[in-house]
Amino acid sequence: MPRYKITIEYDGTGLVGWQRQDNGESVQGTIERAIEAFSGEKATLFGAGRTDAGVHARGQVAHFDIEKSFPTHNVLNAINFHVRPIAIAVVEAEEVTDEFHARFSAKERSYIYRIINRPAPLVLDGRYALHIPKELDHQAMHDAAQVLVGKHDFSSFRAKECQSESPVKSLTRIAVTRDEDEIQIAVAAPSFLHHMVRNITGTLIEVGNGKWTKKDVQEILTAKDRAKAGPTAPAHGLYFMKVVY
Amino acid sequence: MPRYKITIEYDGTGLVGWQRQDNGESVQGTIERAIEAFSGEKATLFGAGRTDAGVHARGQVAHFDIEKSFPTHNVLNAINFHVRPIAIAVVEAEEVTDEFHARFSAKERSYIYRIINRPAPLVLDGRYALHIPKELDHQAMHDAAQVLVGKHDFSSFRAKECQSESPVKSLTRIAVTRDEDEIQIAVAAPSFLHHMVRNITGTLIEVGNGKWTKKDVQEILTAKDRAKAGPTAPAHGLYFMKVVY
Repeated sequence: MPRYKITIEYDGTGLVGWQRQDNGESVQGTIERAIEAFSGEKATLFGAGRTDAGVHARGQVAHFDIEKSFPTHNVLNAINFHVRPIAIAVVEAEEVTDEFHARFSAKERSYIYRIINRPAPLVLDGRYALHIPKELDHQAMHDAAQVLVGKHDFSSFRAKECQSESPVKSLTRIAVTRDEDEIQIAVAAPSFLHHMVRNITGTLIEVGNGKWTKKDVQEILTAKDRAKAGPTAPAHGLYFMKVVY
Repeated sequence: MPRYKITIEYDGTGLVGWQRQDNGESVQGTIERAIEAFSGEKATLFGAGRTDAGVHARGQVAHFDIEKSFPTHNVLNAINFHVRPIAIAVVEAEEVTDEFHARFSAKERSYIYRIINRPAPLVLDGRYALHIPKELDHQAMHDAAQVLVGKHDFSSFRAKECQSESPVKSLTRIAVTRDEDEIQIAVAAPSFLHHMVRNITGTLIEVGNGKWTKKDVQEILTAKDRAKAGPTAPAHGLYFMKVVY
């Protein structure tokens, strides 16, 4: 029984998120329907990360098993044909052994949060980045972010609905960089809590606008209290970029 | 009488192009209406480059004169308020002397043409880049493009409707680079013929897919015949990036 690993891009704008739901189009549900349409088989799609409604992906990874075997470029083209017109595309497909699991074999996941920091409204990036008119100090954001690197109890950055067994996670790296008007927050970790990147972003924005300092971020982390941290940054600035296996 | 220089971003998707027209929303017409709405004055907007329908801009430049004087951040905010919901934004505004002319003072204009080169359809970039599924040799494209650098008769890359007095232009530089799936063609020149960047792109794509060589591009240039060159690449991959004064 062949197992296929697929790498997926999507525009989260009109989607209810990764997970199959009754109230709208999900990435998982849409691709499962496409698999059935071309193979005639009902498969379950296992994803590396359950992105929320509105979050984009450049490199989500998932796997599924079907009875019949197909050349991988047929798998790619057939899914892409059947998902239309929903804004989801399989950008790579390969056959893997049944030891591979998109979720459990993942060693590192990485995300980017995009902020366009300028007075003018966004007309090319409005759906794909957060607009912050007031100037942010990205170097202060980068510096403060470094207190989060390493193994910590991230309860202050955890959504109430988070289903993770433990609030302890190991943040591998976080970098805040600026290229003209665009600030990017790039984070990587073996795994994340629910809303963790968006909650870290919401907190770092408060550092960038001068409300908080690196010391405040340290205290927020130590408090293990979601109420101490900044707001959850909007979904549309976030991209699930890559999974390392 | 103050003169304002504005730098403009737009999503060309729904626009008829830079120039005021009766059949739809233009950048020029929309901003002229916005200027009148906030200042009460009818002004003419002079642009650095007359982009076609569908072409985007990150750094179009224009100027206009009005009787009353306003702080530049008010000019920026007021135009951005009144152009809504059309996807045009003034990203910078400054007051200049009447020696400045957006079109005639320009020393260099630069464009980027974006191609996403992969089998999978585009879901995040579909409106903002040309999709070419078959692999292109971007190094061959870059190499062939170098024969275009310098002062030449660019008749082979000139639209029939071009109103320029002469087909002779000086291409300052052209670079074809690749970053993963994305190929960018970056060009700069004091000025361009109508459709010149899109016609050069259409020709370089034929080099990238192996139909033509560097020698063919040289012969196409020398022929001074539009029929010899490649097709006009679609508008939606093109961005007007910057003007140097």
